[in-house]
Amino acid sequence: MTMSRRELRALRGFVFDLDGCVWTGDILVPGAAEVLALLRQQGRRVSFLTNNSRARSATMQAKLERLGVEAAVEDVLTPLEILGEVIATRWGISRVLAIGGPELEAAVLDGGHTLVPVDRYGEATVVVVGNDFAFSYERLTAASRAIAAGAAFVTPNLDPRLPLEGGDFLPGCGAVVEAVAAASGARPVVIGKPEPPLFELALGRMDLRAEEAAMVGDSVDSDIRGARRVGMTAILFAPDGGLDGVAHVMVKSMAQLKRLLQ
Amino acid sequence: MTMSRRELRALRGFVFDLDGCVWTGDILVPGAAEVLALLRQQGRRVSFLTNNSRARSATMQAKLERLGVEAAVEDVLTPLEILGEVIATRWGISRVLAIGGPELEAAVLDGGHTLVPVDRYGEATVVVVGNDFAFSYERLTAASRAIAAGAAFVTPNLDPRLPLEGGDFLPGCGAVVEAVAAASGARPVVIGKPEPPLFELALGRMDLRAEEAAMVGDSVDSDIRGARRVGMTAILFAPDGGLDGVAHVMVKSMAQLKRLLQ
Repeated sequence: MTMSRRELRALRGFVFDLDGCVWTGDILVPGAAEVLALLRQQGRRVSFLTNNSRARSATMQAKLERLGVEAAVEDVLTPLEILGEVIATRWGISRVLAIGGPELEAAVLDGGHTLVPVDRYGEATVVVVGNDFAFSYERLTAASRAIAAGAAFVTPNLDPRLPLEGGDFLPGCGAVVEAVAAASGARPVVIGKPEPPLFELALGRMDLRAEEAAMVGDSVDSDIRGARRVGMTAILFAPDGGLDGVAHVMVKSMAQLKRLLQ
Repeated sequence: MTMSRRELRALRGFVFDLDGCVWTGDILVPGAAEVLALLRQQGRRVSFLTNNSRARSATMQAKLERLGVEAAVEDVLTPLEILGEVIATRWGISRVLAIGGPELEAAVLDGGHTLVPVDRYGEATVVVVGNDFAFSYERLTAASRAIAAGAAFVTPNLDPRLPLEGGDFLPGCGAVVEAVAAASGARPVVIGKPEPPLFELALGRMDLRAEEAAMVGDSVDSDIRGARRVGMTAILFAPDGGLDGVAHVMVKSMAQLKRLLQ
């Protein structure tokens, strides 16, 4: 730990990653509810920042409530919240081929863009690739041909896995993206962690500066590197152990984090 | 060209890549039949080496004949020819999860191994990933979980694209492999080009030493680097231009290659 307990306890806001830190699959991470409750008792700001490419804020907030954790919709951020805006800012109102779930498509439409069906991939000017439970060779072909022909390539995240209960996993958005990247010969623009925009949006909604807040996450690549880039304190949750020194603080359990904050 | 015309004409055997050099999709590459006919008139040995992960030698030889190019089955090599043997040598008789086409499955069975169905991926000790027109999120999940749990990971090739007529393409075996590699956290053992075994088998069947033979291919990564590694002359077929200096000889058309050999 490269940070004193006193410095840690001086922080005014804590941003939690969801998948793997607050829940795995459909069960709460042991101790997560308790550390969140403590932070709120202490009057600190708490928010949630997930790289989930299949769910918008309202869906993630509903899952938090279902698992017994209170949160306002505006305290939960996903890359889909800013996807439509990023596309509009960088490429204007676009014809988008969306490879992913229904909430990815809804986020594109809400941004004012139109959706291109998979069999008309040639009309797309932007291709968004999220985690896609309906991923297929046909969808891989459509996405990579559209990008090879000049369409922009965007993704919510590059996370290789979606952690589930009991150490199991599903392939992540990053796995689907790597297939498209290989066949298209292009690398995507990444919307979510570790890129700065979502961290900055979370800080803005908590009305805090980066130095006043910590990111609690289980991914060195997404959470820890991303938090350090914007100047936040980086707390690595590594139940199976992790590399020392990459984060300001490393904890093996949420109970340990709670003790450090008491 | 770093090789004299005289040195080129002294070569006794020529190995041709198929996809992109002899045919694209279902049409012959212009001039390919003529250069092959010339080499045979000159009494040189001609053979074919493809990285195709979906077809065995007999299928590739039948396609050559259909397109008007004569070849014996033993003069056509694909990674599937040695797949079963490589698995047996490295891991013994195995329970194999095969993600790919029916000829990939047949090659595994011919090697004496058994096939594990996708929904019983946990029983696999080896996972083979070829180009898979039926690729899906379910198949990606099965392959990456089996590998993450300790199964060996093998692929015929890492080629990112399968070239088609008119500059179009399908995603290649390498694109499917990258998705599995990302989610599993492992890199595969590669059976085909640019690894040496298939080049060495081709040389053995032509009864030639590496210095006596050339590889004609359109992929720098697979054909040119692979040929150089075993000591063969490397001839790059680059209709759209290519990097000078990576191959011994670079030609923009098969007609140009024919002129060099006359």
